[in-house]
This record gives sequence, structure tokens and C-alpha cells, in this order.
Amino acid sequence: MQYVKIKDAIVEQIESGQLSPREKLPAERKLAESFDTTRVTLREALSLLEAEGRIYREDRRGWFISPSPLRYDPSQTLNFTNMALAQQRTPNTVLLSAQSTVANKHAAQLLDLQPFSNVYQVDRVRYLENRPVVYVTHYIRPEFVPDLLRHDLTTSLTDIYREHYGMVYQSIRYRITTSTLLGETAQALRATSGTPAMVVERINYNQHGELIDCDIEYWRHDAISIESFATLVR
Amino acid sequence: MQYVKIKDAIVEQIESGQLSPREKLPAERKLAESFDTTRVTLREALSLLEAEGRIYREDRRGWFISPSPLRYDPSQTLNFTNMALAQQRTPNTVLLSAQSTVANKHAAQLLDLQPFSNVYQVDRVRYLENRPVVYVTHYIRPEFVPDLLRHDLTTSLTDIYREHYGMVYQSIRYRITTSTLLGETAQALRATSGTPAMVVERINYNQHGELIDCDIEYWRHDAISIESFATLVR
Repeated sequence: MQYVKIKDAIVEQIESGQLSPREKLPAERKLAESFDTTRVTLREALSLLEAEGRIYREDRRGWFISPSPLRYDPSQTLNFTNMALAQQRTPNTVLLSAQSTVANKHAAQLLDLQPFSNVYQVDRVRYLENRPVVYVTHYIRPEFVPDLLRHDLTTSLTDIYREHYGMVYQSIRYRITTSTLLGETAQALRATSGTPAMVVERINYNQHGELIDCDIEYWRHDAISIESFATLVR
Repeated sequence: MQYVKIKDAIVEQIESGQLSPREKLPAERKLAESFDTTRVTLREALSLLEAEGRIYREDRRGWFISPSPLRYDPSQTLNFTNMALAQQRTPNTVLLSAQSTVANKHAAQLLDLQPFSNVYQVDRVRYLENRPVVYVTHYIRPEFVPDLLRHDLTTSLTDIYREHYGMVYQSIRYRITTSTLLGETAQALRATSGTPAMVVERINYNQHGELIDCDIEYWRHDAISIESFATLVR
């Protein structure tokens, strides 16, 4: 298949360093010319490269070479900022909204709540080197963190829990699936609707084993690599 | 966006049980008619449903409703058959090839070997209810399992290790990313080239802490849900 050959050629240019992270690819028309192929075939090659996380598209801005993904251990890493800094990345967080609201179906199910229970909902976008990489929605049981919304929610929730409520995450249950970015989520990540996403759902328990919050993370799939080490229990 | 409305309508039919797992969807032409839309718009809706793992395509056979995904804990579950049986699924394994070969770049890197080292390579496809769901390639360091190829490799490798070589997996390092199914891998899973995939790479150590093998798993992304529980180390 010709588009696979074109894909491999671009992968080679990336691995050899001729194309570097965050570099913008030439316009599709130019690329099609330089590979002496049609726009259709080129697009097939580009969507393969996107699916493999080699390149990403920013809505109306074109195609870019993907930076190396953030190594993410959902069984340990509970603080995006520290995780990014430890990997020599430049993190940033933008708070989209923080409100007291009625739990939707999904949140009620994850937090094991009755329908129409109240929760705090905190929506944030995390950036690496000024590129939005993950849309995170936290749902928090208010009884454990009264007046949470008074605090600066652009900072680490885990820090706020520890410093103001004497509470830490002790154990977590997580689930990883794949999906796509749509609507608001896609927009907030500057992605076109339908961009592949890695979805991480986490349910978090405090040091008393109480379920305190959950978070749902929509990652640009090329921006994350789930990595962990485990010793087997027998 | 009209195609999102169509997607949601089909999701509702799935969740209400009007469409059941493994049921075949009507032909695209018929679907387009019944939603009073164009083939193009319908295809957008279908590819969203595919990306979300709600439906899957079998090459030249059409679209089907996805069965519930297999819950998979890469930090624990090392035996596909037992994992499937424990979830009331019907597993099956087909051995594609087993050979002694020279490690390719990827295998040499995962197994920390010199280029041109010899390894055993075992390629298998795992089925659930007669549907191929994952293409697994094992690369094994021969010094730990001399004459491995004499054994019945349609059975569990971990059983063979334990019974014939007194060896068990003690710890594993794993990495989860997303990609697409291509070429042979796609064919073996009856998928069209470009179908989304969840890729699990595992490096496995025995009870003496020695690196014995690695495996690379290409899952039909809708067939797997990575789920785990962790207590945080401080």
C-alpha cells in the first residue's frame, strides 16, 4: 500500500531527527507533491501517523510532529505538575470551571452516590510546553472537603487536600480505555472532533479507605504513555 | 453536528438492549435511509462509534455491536485463558508461528540484547467467543527455556515455564499506548487496516529477577478495558 510507504518515509525522517518535535509539517498540497502522490493517499498516510501518535493536528493550524509522550503511571502519579517536572517538561494548568452541582449519571456511578447528590465538579486543562494535552474533570464528595471552592484550584488538588483537610490519597482504582475527542473537550485541546483519545478514569480513596473523589481524564492519545512496574502477588 | 446525533441514537439503542452484542448492523445504505441522512454523514457516525468501541467492523463482513470488553489488569493477569474464563468468556488460542530467529530491533531493545542475538518468537491470536481480539508476539531469551519449541505452544506459556523449567513470572514492566492495526496483524484479527488498537508491551522477569521474555499485544481497542487497583507507596 503506497500510503504505508509514505508513512514509513515520514517516520524515518522523524527518527533520524530531520523532523523535530513540535515542528510543523508542510501543507498537505506540498507534501503530496514531494511524495509524488494524491491528496487522498497522503491523507491516509497522515491519519496513520496520527493514529500511531507520530504527528498531531491542531484545529485549523495543520499537522505537527508529536513531542515524546509523558510517561504516566496511574497507580502512582497523582500530581501532574510534579510528574511533568520530573521528566524535564514544562507543565501548566488552566482552570475552566469549578462549581457545586448535581452529580450526573456517570459521576454518581463512579462515586457510588444516590442520583441528585451534590458534588463539586472541577474542570481543568493541563498543558505541556504550552500544548494542551489532557482535559481533566474531577468530581468530589463535598462532605470531605467543605468549602473546597474557596481554594486556588489551579494548584494541586492533592496539596489542597493534604494542607487544608489533612487528607491524602491512599489507594486508587483506575480504568483505561480509548475513545475520541468531541465538542468542548476537543476544542479545549485544540483538536479536531474525532481525534483519538486515551481515557483514564480514577476513583480515589483516602487514608481511611473512604471514596473521596474521581477524575476522568481525556488525553490526546499521542501525549501519554502509560508505564508501570508490578511485582506479582501470589 | 448531525452525525453526533445519529451516533447518540445508536448508542441509546445499544444501551436499551434493542441492539445486542455481536449483532450485525444493517447495511450502510439501509442505515442511511432509516436515519434519513447521507452515506458520508452515516460513515462519520459509524467511525465515531468505532472509535468509542461501541461497534466494530469485520473486513468485508460489515459492522457489529461490540461485546463488553475483557477486563485486563496488566500488573497481574498473565494468563489470557484463566482471565477470560473468570469473566465467563469463551477463550481460544491459535498458534500462528513459533521459531528460533534473530531478534529484530524492537525485540533486542525490549529484551536488552545485542543485535543479532537469537530469540524464540511465538506469534498467537487470542479469541473470545470465536472473535479474534488480540495478536500477541512473544520474544523469549532461549537460555532460560532450552528446546521451548518442543512444547505445545497453544497452551499457556506461563504453565510451560513453571512445569518444565521451574520458572515463574515474578515482576513485570509494562507500557500501554494506542496505535492502529495494519497488514498481517489486521488480517489475523479480521480487521480493516487502520482499525484503532490498544498496544500492551510487557517485559517479564522471573523469580530471580532475570529478564526472561517480553510480549507485544495488539488488541482490538474495543475488546479490552485496562483495570487495576493500587495502594500508593510513600
